[in-house]
Amino acid sequence: MSDEQTRLEPFDKGGRGLEGDTDPRRVITLLTDFGVSDHYVSVMKGVMLDINPNIQIIDISHTIRPFEIQEASVILAAAYHYFPKGTIHVGVVDPGVGSDRRGILTVTENYYFVGPDNGIFSYALEDPAYLWTRELRTVDFFLDRVSSTFHGRDVFAPVAGYLSTEEAAEKFGPIVSDPIKLANVKADMDSQGTIWGEVIYIDRFGNLITNIETGVFWEGELRVGEEENECMPVIEIGDNIIKGMSEYYQETLEGQIGAHFNSWSRLEIFVPAGNAAQTIQVKKGAPVSVRFEVSA
Amino acid sequence: MSDEQTRLEPFDKGGRGLEGDTDPRRVITLLTDFGVSDHYVSVMKGVMLDINPNIQIIDISHTIRPFEIQEASVILAAAYHYFPKGTIHVGVVDPGVGSDRRGILTVTENYYFVGPDNGIFSYALEDPAYLWTRELRTVDFFLDRVSSTFHGRDVFAPVAGYLSTEEAAEKFGPIVSDPIKLANVKADMDSQGTIWGEVIYIDRFGNLITNIETGVFWEGELRVGEEENECMPVIEIGDNIIKGMSEYYQETLEGQIGAHFNSWSRLEIFVPAGNAAQTIQVKKGAPVSVRFEVSA
Amino acid sequence: MSDEQTRLEPFDKGGRGLEGDTDPRRVITLLTDFGVSDHYVSVMKGVMLDINPNIQIIDISHTIRPFEIQEASVILAAAYHYFPKGTIHVGVVDPGVGSDRRGILTVTENYYFVGPDNGIFSYALEDPAYLWTRELRTVDFFLDRVSSTFHGRDVFAPVAGYLSTEEAAEKFGPIVSDPIKLANVKADMDSQGTIWGEVIYIDRFGNLITNIETGVFWEGELRVGEEENECMPVIEIGDNIIKGMSEYYQETLEGQIGAHFNSWSRLEIFVPAGNAAQTIQVKKGAPVSVRFEVSA
Repeated sequence: MSDEQTRLEPFDKGGRGLEGDTDPRRVITLLTDFGVSDHYVSVMKGVMLDINPNIQIIDISHTIRPFEIQEASVILAAAYHYFPKGTIHVGVVDPGVGSDRRGILTVTENYYFVGPDNGIFSYALEDPAYLWTRELRTVDFFLDRVSSTFHGRDVFAPVAGYLSTEEAAEKFGPIVSDPIKLANVKADMDSQGTIWGEVIYIDRFGNLITNIETGVFWEGELRVGEEENECMPVIEIGDNIIKGMSEYYQETLEGQIGAHFNSWSRLEIFVPAGNAAQTIQVKKGAPVSVRFEVSA
Repeated sequence: MSDEQTRLEPFDKGGRGLEGDTDPRRVITLLTDFGVSDHYVSVMKGVMLDINPNIQIIDISHTIRPFEIQEASVILAAAYHYFPKGTIHVGVVDPGVGSDRRGILTVTENYYFVGPDNGIFSYALEDPAYLWTRELRTVDFFLDRVSSTFHGRDVFAPVAGYLSTEEAAEKFGPIVSDPIKLANVKADMDSQGTIWGEVIYIDRFGNLITNIETGVFWEGELRVGEEENECMPVIEIGDNIIKGMSEYYQETLEGQIGAHFNSWSRLEIFVPAGNAAQTIQVKKGAPVSVRFEVSA
Repeated sequence: MSDEQTRLEPFDKGGRGLEGDTDPRRVITLLTDFGVSDHYVSVMKGVMLDINPNIQIIDISHTIRPFEIQEASVILAAAYHYFPKGTIHVGVVDPGVGSDRRGILTVTENYYFVGPDNGIFSYALEDPAYLWTRELRTVDFFLDRVSSTFHGRDVFAPVAGYLSTEEAAEKFGPIVSDPIKLANVKADMDSQGTIWGEVIYIDRFGNLITNIETGVFWEGELRVGEEENECMPVIEIGDNIIKGMSEYYQETLEGQIGAHFNSWSRLEIFVPAGNAAQTIQVKKGAPVSVRFEVSA
């Protein structure tokens, strides 16, 4: 924590996507629950462009369910590391706007994150490349008049705009040692190598996405596996037991429940041509476990 | 009106967001009722980029209710002044396409507006920085073949594209002295300091947004207020009387009707965790009045 | 086919929109059925920007009905030729992802197209400026790990990114002589000058858009027309006969069935203030014919 200034350097020198590029525009992404019918998102973009017209703004999503911090954190986690080094990710899903919750700037070796301190950046805080978090206190980087209801426009957009002009990150406010982190970011593994996780997101097709990632899965497999033998994962959710993983949706019979790793490296439970959430009758937060059986 | 050429200068020299910037890209915004499922919006963007690839295009909204000019004008009013000086705002909600309604270029000291002459730019016409409006007559700035149904592509997109290349605004056509303005842009105040306004927009949560802005409100308050006393505003809509303003949604009890100034400085009537439009049973155009009582 | 390298030159020298421009950013468009709620589209953009931050990304649509290749091909056909020369169009509607269908790069004199070989680029293949198609085989232009379910991110986005950095197109893979083309791209004309087409798209208003374009229509008219006489087109769909074309929607009586050429030069059948698909009770694929009667 004490060396934050040294470690910040890569950003200040400009950690951009292409070597040798003289002036690529800094990318800023936006993730909100504002919808796209009203003017709110465009106003945030206007504020940022007014501060620095040489940016490139990319929408991640604006249809996060209202106030669903966990959903926002999961979507952001699936997207942020695909962007160029130095990208500024702005996330505004903010049920606490108008209260005294803090605004924060969270920094990893590769990215900046700007938004409320409510857990929306939980996955950045768990990123092995995580550096530090600062509280947004310097009002010089806010709009002149900060409303009680639209910090996206009045605080987070201008902070991102100034950050993109290479303002030093330490100017934005003091280090925060206890940024809020959601409880269920990572699944746990017990001493037997059994993984205890939960459903963290249900997509529009009813697929159940869990907090069990490939990393912990392989670790559990390794712990149980013997040399030449292969392990079979046994997945439990509600009253259902799924034996083995499918590589494709098509490997599981229609109407049956299957499990695979989805394109964002998460264990996902699905029903081919069906709706797993309805079939299994579970909601977000439902427990999911994986144990490994040594095949004969 | 006679000095329009002198007053245009700030734009021709490039009134951009950042001082000292050599070549920032001009921002063009888009506001339509075309939806985002079909190709229409992207075609307008293609036409503009084909004329000038060095622009930045920002969507304000494309889900304005079909042909709802007033809704478009209100959304644009809430957004346009947050963009960098020199931004070109293109608005295409155009029930009269194919008829002989004019296309116009409206200019304020800070912004350009391109679209049909049907009231969509009413708030720019009322802007204290309003300069002038020209009719789009110079067909050199249109696509070669102008269809009867898609002036967004054939007229407004190419005009915005050429404007962004620093073509002098007076080349686009002659001055228009009577651009169409909607009737209810501003609320009225009578000699007693009572404000007579109306509902001009209902958002997706059922909140009732009025044409009563902070400016006229404070003026009314001042007229009635006495030195050390404070005034209490009394708001009437339908059969309902609301006494006093809330600073936050939370100050009003659930199920009760409250009033506050929203993030775009408009008097808004709401029901916490409810739908004001349904509770009060009013539609767009419903009259709203505010009188000020001197508190004892 | 043998001269593909010579004919590629215009692109390699940089076929951009504006003459004399030193460094305009290459435009990449995106057309998918991914929706805009999840992170998928933004991840594709992140991958492209990480390879080349000096691009401009434009969305055509992300709400193509899931797996509807024909719909995607029609929307793309209506949009692609409005973009600057050298634009890269990425289309990902891909029911066959994970199977052994090929990825392709299709090139016309003016545009690049990147996506699956499933007919989505049928209209580019029929473009008089069509040059050639290559199979995407060079894994150096893919992400390191190609998933079985998200080729948009792992194959098509990085290929578009590298293409935008002026990588020579022949490096991406070998020529393909038989890219897949949908059957109904163009309407047929018989020896009597009668045109046999079909409904290829139904828009959200229920208008029936056909594969009969102005070109074949005028050709048919010419074949039948006599010097000074005018021809009247007679359009048949289901049990309905429409005599003559309307220039505007308003020329057809409310409740009646009319036909006109829409803004994308296609014969469209409509019911003013109504829903033609419901009135006529037809679906996509319904046959539509046009014959020309010499007026007396």
